[in-house]
Formats: sequence, C-alpha cells, structure tokens
Amino acid sequence: MPVTQTLHDRHAAASTGREQLAVRHAEVRAHSLALASTLTPEDQCVQSMPDASPTKWHLAHTSWFFEAVVLAPHDPAYRCFDPAYARLFNSYYESLGPRHPRPRRGLLTRPSLGDVHAYREHVDQAVQQFILTAPAAEWDAARDLVELGLQHEQQHQELLATDILHAFSCNPLLPAWQPHDTPALRLAPSTPALRWLEHDGGPVDVGHEGDGFAFDNETPRHRVWLQPFAIADRLVTCGEYQQFIEDGGYARASLWLSDGWAAVQQQGWIAPAYWLAPGGARAPSDQWQVFGAQGVRPLDAAAPVTHLSFYEATAFAEWAGARLPTEFEWEALCEAPGFLQRTGHAWQWTRSSYDPYPGFQPLAGAVGEYNGKFMVGQLVLRGGSAFTPGGHARPTYRNFFPPAARWQCTGLRLAKGRA
Amino acid sequence: MPVTQTLHDRHAAASTGREQLAVRHAEVRAHSLALASTLTPEDQCVQSMPDASPTKWHLAHTSWFFEAVVLAPHDPAYRCFDPAYARLFNSYYESLGPRHPRPRRGLLTRPSLGDVHAYREHVDQAVQQFILTAPAAEWDAARDLVELGLQHEQQHQELLATDILHAFSCNPLLPAWQPHDTPALRLAPSTPALRWLEHDGGPVDVGHEGDGFAFDNETPRHRVWLQPFAIADRLVTCGEYQQFIEDGGYARASLWLSDGWAAVQQQGWIAPAYWLAPGGARAPSDQWQVFGAQGVRPLDAAAPVTHLSFYEATAFAEWAGARLPTEFEWEALCEAPGFLQRTGHAWQWTRSSYDPYPGFQPLAGAVGEYNGKFMVGQLVLRGGSAFTPGGHARPTYRNFFPPAARWQCTGLRLAKGRA
Amino acid sequence: MPVTQTLHDRHAAASTGREQLAVRHAEVRAHSLALASTLTPEDQCVQSMPDASPTKWHLAHTSWFFEAVVLAPHDPAYRCFDPAYARLFNSYYESLGPRHPRPRRGLLTRPSLGDVHAYREHVDQAVQQFILTAPAAEWDAARDLVELGLQHEQQHQELLATDILHAFSCNPLLPAWQPHDTPALRLAPSTPALRWLEHDGGPVDVGHEGDGFAFDNETPRHRVWLQPFAIADRLVTCGEYQQFIEDGGYARASLWLSDGWAAVQQQGWIAPAYWLAPGGARAPSDQWQVFGAQGVRPLDAAAPVTHLSFYEATAFAEWAGARLPTEFEWEALCEAPGFLQRTGHAWQWTRSSYDPYPGFQPLAGAVGEYNGKFMVGQLVLRGGSAFTPGGHARPTYRNFFPPAARWQCTGLRLAKGRA
Amino acid sequence: MPVTQTLHDRHAAASTGREQLAVRHAEVRAHSLALASTLTPEDQCVQSMPDASPTKWHLAHTSWFFEAVVLAPHDPAYRCFDPAYARLFNSYYESLGPRHPRPRRGLLTRPSLGDVHAYREHVDQAVQQFILTAPAAEWDAARDLVELGLQHEQQHQELLATDILHAFSCNPLLPAWQPHDTPALRLAPSTPALRWLEHDGGPVDVGHEGDGFAFDNETPRHRVWLQPFAIADRLVTCGEYQQFIEDGGYARASLWLSDGWAAVQQQGWIAPAYWLAPGGARAPSDQWQVFGAQGVRPLDAAAPVTHLSFYEATAFAEWAGARLPTEFEWEALCEAPGFLQRTGHAWQWTRSSYDPYPGFQPLAGAVGEYNGKFMVGQLVLRGGSAFTPGGHARPTYRNFFPPAARWQCTGLRLAKGRA
Repeated sequence: MPVTQTLHDRHAAASTGREQLAVRHAEVRAHSLALASTLTPEDQCVQSMPDASPTKWHLAHTSWFFEAVVLAPHDPAYRCFDPAYARLFNSYYESLGPRHPRPRRGLLTRPSLGDVHAYREHVDQAVQQFILTAPAAEWDAARDLVELGLQHEQQHQELLATDILHAFSCNPLLPAWQPHDTPALRLAPSTPALRWLEHDGGPVDVGHEGDGFAFDNETPRHRVWLQPFAIADRLVTCGEYQQFIEDGGYARASLWLSDGWAAVQQQGWIAPAYWLAPGGARAPSDQWQVFGAQGVRPLDAAAPVTHLSFYEATAFAEWAGARLPTEFEWEALCEAPGFLQRTGHAWQWTRSSYDPYPGFQPLAGAVGEYNGKFMVGQLVLRGGSAFTPGGHARPTYRNFFPPAARWQCTGLRLAKGRA
Repeated sequence: MPVTQTLHDRHAAASTGREQLAVRHAEVRAHSLALASTLTPEDQCVQSMPDASPTKWHLAHTSWFFEAVVLAPHDPAYRCFDPAYARLFNSYYESLGPRHPRPRRGLLTRPSLGDVHAYREHVDQAVQQFILTAPAAEWDAARDLVELGLQHEQQHQELLATDILHAFSCNPLLPAWQPHDTPALRLAPSTPALRWLEHDGGPVDVGHEGDGFAFDNETPRHRVWLQPFAIADRLVTCGEYQQFIEDGGYARASLWLSDGWAAVQQQGWIAPAYWLAPGGARAPSDQWQVFGAQGVRPLDAAAPVTHLSFYEATAFAEWAGARLPTEFEWEALCEAPGFLQRTGHAWQWTRSSYDPYPGFQPLAGAVGEYNGKFMVGQLVLRGGSAFTPGGHARPTYRNFFPPAARWQCTGLRLAKGRA
Repeated sequence: MPVTQTLHDRHAAASTGREQLAVRHAEVRAHSLALASTLTPEDQCVQSMPDASPTKWHLAHTSWFFEAVVLAPHDPAYRCFDPAYARLFNSYYESLGPRHPRPRRGLLTRPSLGDVHAYREHVDQAVQQFILTAPAAEWDAARDLVELGLQHEQQHQELLATDILHAFSCNPLLPAWQPHDTPALRLAPSTPALRWLEHDGGPVDVGHEGDGFAFDNETPRHRVWLQPFAIADRLVTCGEYQQFIEDGGYARASLWLSDGWAAVQQQGWIAPAYWLAPGGARAPSDQWQVFGAQGVRPLDAAAPVTHLSFYEATAFAEWAGARLPTEFEWEALCEAPGFLQRTGHAWQWTRSSYDPYPGFQPLAGAVGEYNGKFMVGQLVLRGGSAFTPGGHARPTYRNFFPPAARWQCTGLRLAKGRA
Repeated sequence: MPVTQTLHDRHAAASTGREQLAVRHAEVRAHSLALASTLTPEDQCVQSMPDASPTKWHLAHTSWFFEAVVLAPHDPAYRCFDPAYARLFNSYYESLGPRHPRPRRGLLTRPSLGDVHAYREHVDQAVQQFILTAPAAEWDAARDLVELGLQHEQQHQELLATDILHAFSCNPLLPAWQPHDTPALRLAPSTPALRWLEHDGGPVDVGHEGDGFAFDNETPRHRVWLQPFAIADRLVTCGEYQQFIEDGGYARASLWLSDGWAAVQQQGWIAPAYWLAPGGARAPSDQWQVFGAQGVRPLDAAAPVTHLSFYEATAFAEWAGARLPTEFEWEALCEAPGFLQRTGHAWQWTRSSYDPYPGFQPLAGAVGEYNGKFMVGQLVLRGGSAFTPGGHARPTYRNFFPPAARWQCTGLRLAKGRA
C-alpha cells in the first residue's frame, strides 16, 4: 500500500484531534529544552566529531525543520525568523538549498544560545497557531508533516543525548551530564539465565501498516520467508562481554569480519567505547568502569552492554557460538511472550543491511530525502535505547548506523539457527 | 545442508576423474600466463592503487594458494619453493601467518618475474604429481581444495585483467593491453528495444545445491518470498547511459544515494571510469571515447555500459524510473527464456547488500576466510563479465564489491515492481 | 653574553620597583579580560583550527604559566587552584608534564568560563601578594619570571585576537568582534609614494643587549655583515596588492616559490585570507571587501595589506621587481628617520628563516622551551601589528610563523639590493 | 656579480675545449647506465614513495633535460624523439609545460626500459653532434647549458642511488643493489679521537666565484661575519650514534626540536632510517645491522652514521653538548689542514636554513627554476656522500633537503662556539 494512502487514512482518523496534537507538540518541544537544561552555553555549542552535532544545533535544526517543512510551504502568514538560518540549520536536504558543512557545526558560536531559544519560541508559536487555526485544506496538507516534525524532533533528542555524551567523553574531566544520584538504568539486579525463544520459520509479514505513524522506510508491509531460528530473550550483559574481553576477544582475528579486524587494529579498540580499563590514567581504579550520563561508574555486570559497534557485536556473537538475528527474525518475535528488553535499554544490531523494502517509495518532496538516500553501507538496529524518548519506538522501527559507529547506545541480542 | 556434506557428495561423483582434473588444472594455469603474455616485466610489477594488485603478484599468489592449501597440508613429499614467499604472497588469510601489506605489493620488484615463473612451474609440477598419484586418503581430503584452487585462480584471472586495465588507464599514453584488431566484445549491432520479463512473486528457492562446484557464500539453498516484479531482458547500453549524462544525471542530487552524491562531488565523477569526454586532453576527439583492453575506441552506443559504481547504477535507475533488481529477483529469472546477456558482458549490480544466507557456514579451516569475512559494506553483483573466464560463472554466483568500486567490469540491468 | 647575566643586570636596576610591577601586572591581566568582554561563552570556547586556541584557553593558559613558572617553584605558600588544570592548560612544555592535545582544546567546555575567571582571580591574588611580599631571595629568583609571564600574556593577547578573528571568519554570519563604529586602524588617508631608505652595507651589530626585557631568541647581540641595500619606508598597501591580483598574480607560477605555488593550488587562494571577492556569496557586493575585527568593510586601498602568507609576500615582491628584506636589514634601518609603520599595523615577513643566533642559549629550565625548540621551518617577522599590545614590540623582536600562516596580522615591506 | 657574466667568462676560457666536453658528456651519460646495470626492468620502474623516482624516470628525465634546455631551443636540426615524453619526464619546470604528477611516476610502465634506452641514444647522438659541430653563435648560447645538463645528470645519479636503496629497503627480501663483496666505503679502521679545528671569527668571504662551474644558489660570493667557533675534524660515527640511542636519545623530548619530537612520535623513529635493531623480524640478528647498497651488514662502529634527518642530527648534537655548524662555518674551514671526510662519505646537515644569498639572481629562463624556488623550509647540507659522483661536489656547493628527509646519505659533523 502506498505511503500516501497510509497518511491519508491516518488523517481521516485523527482530524478531530488538533488540540491533542497541540499539547503533544508543546510537550515534545519542551522535552528538548529539558534535556539541555543542565548544560552550559559552551556545552551546547561544542562538536566533538563530524558525526556528532552541537546541542544548540539540534535545538535550532529541529525548529528549522518545522519552518521549512510545515510553515513555509503551508502557512501563508508565517514570517521567517531569520533567512540566514536556513543555510545554517539544514542538515542534508539537497532540495532545500545549500548548507553549512556538517563538520563545522561546532564553529557556529553565533547565533547565540539566546538567539536559538528565541528562534524556537518564534517557530513554536507559529506552529501552535497553525495547528489550532489552519484552514482545513492547509491542515489536510500539513498535518502529517507536523507529526513527522515531532518524530524527527524525538530522533534528535536521542542524538542530542548521545552527542553530548561523546563530547563529555573527550573531556579529561569526564563531566556528568545528569546528576550523579540519578537512578541507574532499568536493570535487573542480577543477570538472569538466557532463554531462547523459538520460531519454526515459514512466511511472515513484516513492516508497518495501518493508521499509526511510521517512517517511510518501514513500508510497505510485505511477506518474507524465514528459516527456523531461535532468539535470546534478553540482551548481552556487560558481565558476559567482559568474559569475551578476558578471553582475548579483541586479539583473535578469526572472530572478526575483515573490516572489523582492521578497525580494531587501526583504532586500538580493546573494549566498548566508554569502558575505562583498570589501571588507566583517566579515572584511576583497579576495576573496569563505564563512563555515561552520570559520569564514571563501576561496571555493572548485569547491565546490557552498550556503545559497541556492529563489528564488536558480530565478533562477540561468533565467540559465543551464535549470531545476530536478522531484522525480520527480531520483528517476528519481538512481541512474543518472554521477549525482554525490547526497548528502553539499547538499540540492537541486526545482521541485516539497511536495504529498501520491496516496493519502497520515499515520501514525496523534500521529506523524501529523510531515509531512503541512506540505504547503503549501514546496518539495521531494532528496539530502542535508554535515550529513546518514551513512545517513539515500535516493533517495525528501523534504526540504522554504519558498522563502526560506537557513540550511539547500541547493544546486541543473540540468535541462532535451528536444524 | 552443510557445505562439508555438499563437498563430499561432489567428491563421490567425481572420484574417477583425476586425469580430467589434471588436464583442467594445466589449462587454467596456462591461461593465467597467456593473459600476461603481452605485458612487459614492468607492466607485471606495477600496482596502480591499493585495491589493485600487480600481475606478477596474481601469478605468485595463485601459486601460493595451491602451496598453502593443497600441498603443504596434504602432500608430505612437497618441498617448499621459498619460505619467504608465504609472507609475500598471502593475500588476507590471518590464520596462515603474517602478510606483506596490500598497498605495497607494487614494491616487490624482487622476486623477479623469472623467479615467479619458476615458482609457478615448481608448484604446478607438484600439483600435477599430487593429482595423479596421491593415495586415496590424501586425495579424498584434498580434491575439493584443488577445485577451489582452480576457481580461485579464475577469479584472479579476472582481477589480473581489470587491474592491468586500471594501471594502463593511469598512464598518459593509454596503452592497449590487447591488439587493436581484437574483435569488440560480443555486442548486438544495434540496441534492441528493452523488453520486461515478469514474475508473479511468491516463494522461490535460491542458492546453490547439488554436485557442481560453488563457493560457500552461495549456500545453503533456501526459500525467499518475492513480490511481483519485472526485470529487463538486457543490460543498459552506453547510448542510454550517455542520455543520462546529457540530461544532467551527474548534477542532480535527487537521483543519488547520499554517499553516492558525496562520491560524485569528491571524486569529480562526470561519466563511467574509463569514458573520455569530448575535448579532453588525454585522447583528443570531439566524441565520447572509451578506454579499454584495446586502448581508446569511439563509444559504441549499443554496447553495455561498464565500469560504473553501484552509486551510478542506482542513480541511472532512478533517472530511468526503475530500480535495480535484488539478487533473488535476478536469480529467479536469469534462466528464463529471453533473458539476454546473463554473463559474458558485465557484472550486474543488484540492490542487495552482501549479507550471509540463513544458515551460512564458512568452509572449515583457512579457506573459510575466503568469503564470509567480507560480508558487510559490499553489494552483490550477479552475472559475469567479458573478463570472466569461460565456465566460471553460474546463476547462483555471488560476486561482491564496495559501492564505489569502478575498476571492475560492472554494469546494470533494470527492474521494477508490479502493482 | 649569557642570558642569565643579562637577567641579573636587569634585576639590579629594577629591585626597587615592585609596586610598579604589581600595577603593570594588574593592567596586563585586566587587558586580557577586556579583550574578551564582547564575546559570549560560546565564542570563548570555540577552536576553529588546530593552530588557533579558544579565548578561554588563552585566559587559563596564561594563568597556568604564572602558576607553573612563578608560584609553584618560588612561593611555598601557594595553593594550587585545581591540579587537573596543569594537564588542560599546558601548551607545549614537555618538561612540565603531559598535556591535553592541542587540536582538542575546543572540546574543553568544562571547566566553564566562570571557573576560568575564578582561576585567574586566584592566581592573580597570589601573584600580587608574591610581588609585594616575597622575601628577597625568592624575589631575586622569580622577578624575571614575573616579567616573562607578562610578556607571555601579551603575546597571547595578540593570539586571542587573531584566533577569534579566524573563528568568526568561519561563521557564515561573519560577526564583528568589535563595534562597527570603531575607528579604522591608524591609516594614512591616501597612499603616499613609496620612498627607499638606503644602507651602504658593512658590519652591523644586531640583537638585544642591555637592561630591558627581551626574549632569549633575540640574543646574544652579535655582528653581521650586510651588502648595500634599500628598504621601503612604508608597508605595501591593499591597493597595491589588488593590482598584483588583477595582474594575474595568483595565476603565474613563475612568481612563486615552489611550496607557495602548491599552496595556491591546493588551498585555492585567490587573495589574502580575509578578502571577500566581488560577487561572492558570503557578503554580497560588487567591490572587494575585507573581513576584520569590525566585521565586513569595503577594501581600503591605502591600508596596509594584512593576513597574507610568506608565500604571497614573496610572490608580490617578485612581481614588484623587489624582494623582502632580511631580518637584519630591517633591524639595521628600522629606527632610521623616515622609516614608517614600524609597528602597530602588521607584522612584516622577512626573507630570513628563523635560525638561532650564534651563541644562542635558551633560558634555563622549562622556560627554555619557549623559543628555541621552534627554530626550524619558520620565517622571522619583524615589527608589530594592530593587535600587538602597546609597548610589547621592540626593534630586536623576532616573531616567527610557518610560511603558509595567514591568520596572523601579517603584511610586508619591500627591499632591494644596490649595485 | 651577475651569474650571466660569470657564465660568459667561463665560456671564453673554455671555447677551445669542445672535444673534451664531448668526451666528458659521453662519460657522464654512460655512468648513469652503469649505475642501473644490475637492476631488473621492474627495479627500474618502481617508485617507493612520492619523494623518490624510478630509475627509468631518472634515465629519461636527464635526457629530456638536454632535449628541452639544449637541443630544442638551440639546435634547429633536432627532431624530437617523441612529443609525449615532454609531459612524462618534466620534473617541475612550470615554464616548460604540464607534467605527469610526481607521486605517479611509478605507474609509467610504458614507455618501456627499451624505449627509454633508445631515447637516451637519440638524445646523446644529437648532443654529441651539437657539441662538435654547432656554429659558434649557437655554441656560445648553449655551451653553459650543456655543462648544466651534465651537472644535473650527476645530481640525478646520486638520487638514482638513494632512490633504489629506498625501494629495496621496502622489500622484505632486502635485496642488495651492489655485489656483497664490494669493499665497504672508505672508512678508517677504527674511530680516531675527535679533534676540534678552531676559527677566530670575523669577516669571511663565502660563495662561488670564478671560472669553474657552480649552481646559481652558490652565488654571489659575499662577505659574512663569523663569531669564534670550533668544528670537528671528522664526522660522527655509528658507534657514537649508538651511544646516543642507548642513552635514551629517542625518548628524551628535551633534546629535540619541537617538530623533530613530533616526527619521532608519529613515525616511531628509534634509529636512523636503515638501521635494523637487534631481535627484529626483518633480518634476524642479536646485533645492530645496517641495510645499504650491499644489503644487510653488521653495524660498523667506525663508519660515519648516515641516513638520518636534520632533527636527529640536532638532537644528537644537543646530547653531545655541541651543535651543528652553520654552512658558513663549514665553508670557512672545510679546506683547512686536518679537516677530514669533507666529501665522499655523507652530506653534512648544517644549522643553516636554505635562504638566498644577498644579491642572488636565478639563471635566466627555465633553468632559473632549478634552485631558487625551493628556498624555504629546507636545510643546507655541505660536503658530499659516498653516492656523489667524483668531482661533482666542491666547497661552496649547497645541497638542500627538508628536515625530516632520511633517504639521502646524510650525516653530521659537530661544531661549538668559543668564548
């Protein structure tokens, strides 16, 4: 079913809910500011690597998205806040004009944080006004784009978190983003035994269908044929991963994909991105420690391992005598009874490259640049992490990153074939 | 079905054919030398980029493969030609010891070409002797490895060709590898109208099964579910690709994957790798020309376009209102009546990332490093090119290269979905 | 004469002047903060290239210098502000412990600007106390180091200015650091005719001697032998440099040193660093404009040309039928009547590589790392720029930068030989 | 005195010596071929780094120099061998047209070695003919250029040697260029005690003057003023350098220039370029060994240390409590009694940057690109090495290389100031 029809159906069902959408818009937008509330202006300006963006840029870019995609095309009354911002805060939409180069986003000390806050308010007022008062024709045309803007903002909320974490990890002071007394993530008190959930294979329908929001890359829903397999009921833990390290996992080429082994050697990887080895200079301890949102903490053996690359995930699985699930195996069982930690802990690398679904059609217009043009050289992750905003993820959600990425909150779940 | 069982079955069927294998071994090995026969010692030593290897290295490496995989483990009487060669001519087998770095293969002016020829003769005599006289137990253990060595050599024959072509393309003199009066490739005299071959979708079995040789990455045979689709009966031609260029194909970001557009801009691509634009300085002409094995020739509009990247293939398909086939769509119809140019012209980029088949098991031992460890970040190509040795390709064959590779003889065939 | 003796002599002469030094210390330190007063916290944190440093880093590093060189070794009562700062704010003193990598200074969002201000106050109070109350022995040992600290701070004041200018030049908004109504630099209203000041050659004594402060690289004073020469009475102007551009200066290889020509081609130079060509996208105008401390202004033909590399300076001189002066030619005539614009406008590239003077001895201890270890691959500049603090420069002063540097306020003065 | 006048004077004195020049031309040209006589065609084609060139390229380029500088402008009867060669074998003469990129010289497998030999013969016959029969006017104009061509060829003979040595050093087989039974270089049987030769300073005239050949960078002869100094009578030996290594020389930042220390760390230097540490994998031994023209040999403690960078030379001198001489100190005493090893062993790094002499004028025309345009960022070396052709060096000769260069036959001689 074409995406445009999907959008239309959703529209019909929700046309009476402008007020709810206005409330949700306000909530989502406020949450972005809340995430930044403990950060100084300098913290919000820094860019620690080309893959990451400054907090301030995230705050401005998500506003620009509403401006460029909702307001400018659909609200004749809208007055642009500052025409120069389009170039500064466009991320990668070729069809929406030239852009400031991504690796130089950290140089944008101006506009100031105050200017960006004013920009957000300006856009927010216009969007609220538009939601509540737009004539029906404009609303019909733009409603799904408002929803897309909110989903887009939630994605950037997660990036804001992982990007500031990376920036702080580069600071010798290893600052904490959140108070040190924040409760640790939702973890089991000790590691339960791993159980295998089984599937007999055969035809399975995957992908999104129906009224709820989904990104275009989750469509169209279609049939695939699975072979019999089993999938772990929970994520791999830090304690298990520590065993892999201590068994020489990072020194045995036979466990690794060729590109992964090259990365291990060139980058000097000896553990996940934010693990601090015993005896290191940065945060002295005789135990493994892990840097995170609350600063440096002792390694929690029962917690899911996070911040590892696809290469490390596959090497661990090989070492464990298992493999990663495909994205469709994951989707086929993710709602089965006993399937734990589906979301809220870590994005889960799958053994599926990020290819288009059969019949995939990008959205029309500039927003069609959102997903499809990245469909090469990346791997699908399923689930959702501790940084994913509540309600954002769903079983058909396809997250994607290059295989060497480690600054996202990424972990793994094992799978294996069945005779 | 596990690969080892597959190999055993093949062995049972062929145990009476040692003489035929000895003949085939001699033929395959002689063909490698024939390919190099018009090249000077300097030509055979040069390495024009890290992805390519010198002719001399190909000649030695394929010999080393027989030595390391067949003779050393299975022939107690074998005497190593030179122990230093193992380091020089190992390609990427981590389990077979340290290696000379790939980007520095062109520095190996010693051993001389004469030394490498002597090495080949030494190994060839030992392999012939082994084939004809090995006791049954050794033969049982090694027979499939001899076959693997021949298939491996055929793969390097194609690489030898594409690598020397690349080296010559870097030389301002643009030398011809083959005589200028060699007949052009098997082409239709003019471009026939493109016809679409249709498939109704549903369950299809793909992958290799049975007695014939196949690489491990083609197994196990398994079921997939296809959606209805159509595939072009022939390859895209140079004339059609020229229209894409003249329609601004290389200047329209909307046609390209994001990484592809970046490659266009960073590499300055304006045409396939070996096309020479009218008015250029390298081989003056007011027409498009194409550099190839016979040197520079006028563009042949009816010939399949070759030497383009996956990025260019997808951009062309987008421009043409179509898409690339998946590897399974290709396999499902490649033996259908009317399916033209299956092999012998160009490897055909598919829209399938090079992922493992469900239940994939690499071969045991060092030869298991052959295919599986490259299963990330590459795309599957199907078919076979003008440089592929006769009889080497088959319908289940999975060739693979990174999306930016252009020095291989790569082209494309269009596909599209059906309502 | 050894430097230590020089320092001792100065000490004897100045032992009664603690109060004056305390006042000067307070003034110099206050000036650094004044330079930063119009900058936001983000502005003060950004690092726009590895050669540049954040304002905040300059403010902290100059404080660390007093702490590490004066207080820690000489004031037993001093309590370190924060032991972690030594690693963060050491610039390149190998003997004073490990350092945060230079290209990553911009990642130091913490300590915050407030923390750095508190650090400055802490150090300032201790230095003031030390100046006024240190026992004679400690004062004897440390007095020259206090002076060195002030001279060091003045150098960083100039870098602070040129670094923030570079950062702003990278921002598409091209912000102004100083108010737009600041009077332009001290310029003649129109370009006077250039006059040549002549020298007959022969033995000349150069280098520093006597009681006043000087860096070790200016010593020992020694004799050189000059050939007859003439030197221009004023700097080359923007109007003259524009003629060079319009005469194809950036397109004529014969005018350039080999490395300079390579830089032109690789960097795409077509004008000095902060010139904006007519018709460009960044600040639309049909005239040449120049970005500077007050933002974008029309090119002032009578102003000295600045922000060019040694390569550009030599190419201009070649085009003009002249050459650059050597550093000794410059020094021999810089106090002659009629020698204009000696300082206050632009540092003046000389044709002298930055080599040690005969008998050069670095200062003892860590401060000996200050100058000598950079004596290779750099060129000497003489004079002083619009950003050089008043009273900091002197005729024997040897500034030095690599030949491709353009972010400093660098210009040129012509010279020529005489028959 | 202008160079052109110098050349004219030489011409007048030598106009009767065409036959001698023809003989010398034949000898010099033959020597280039003799140097290559033990090399295979592959050896002569390889380029092991951008700074080095293939033997075949040296053979062709030196021929092109005669063609472009002598024959084409001055011999109307000359017929160009192949017009394509001008682009292939021009080194860096911008005024003589476009060039094949330097780092890609190793890709020129065509023209073949045979073609290059034919090219040499073609050019040699024409030059011989021109020398012996050119009318007086042409001869007057071209005679000095023939001499320049011979001097140029001798420079390339040294580069040919150091470049092939570098190529062989990259080959795991560490081949020998010359027979293993070649007598070792002219060395004292044991290291004599070092003696200091003293100079009282004052005015000294340096640079070339008179009838003999000299490069333009050695002129004009001019006066400099030296301070009192002493210079070592011999070069630093391998045994002395080994002491520096064993005393931790490569681990003590305080000994090194800043750029040198960075090179040590980035390149992992632990010894001169061709030293093989005890226990290494490349040529097993429990003693230091040195790779050279005769392959791998045990370190000879009495031999001059060679193949080190300017950075290593200055660090050694610092460690030894001395310094490098300036180029003028070297020149002032190089012909004094007792000054040993002036030439024939190693080029000797001086503490002088490669700056122009006062009044320096490049030669007119394309040959003026020969020296002057490299006068920045390089250091002067004096003397001459074991690879320098006999008679090529002289006391005023200024060789020059960047400070990190190690593939030349470079060593050092100590100096120090006097009270």
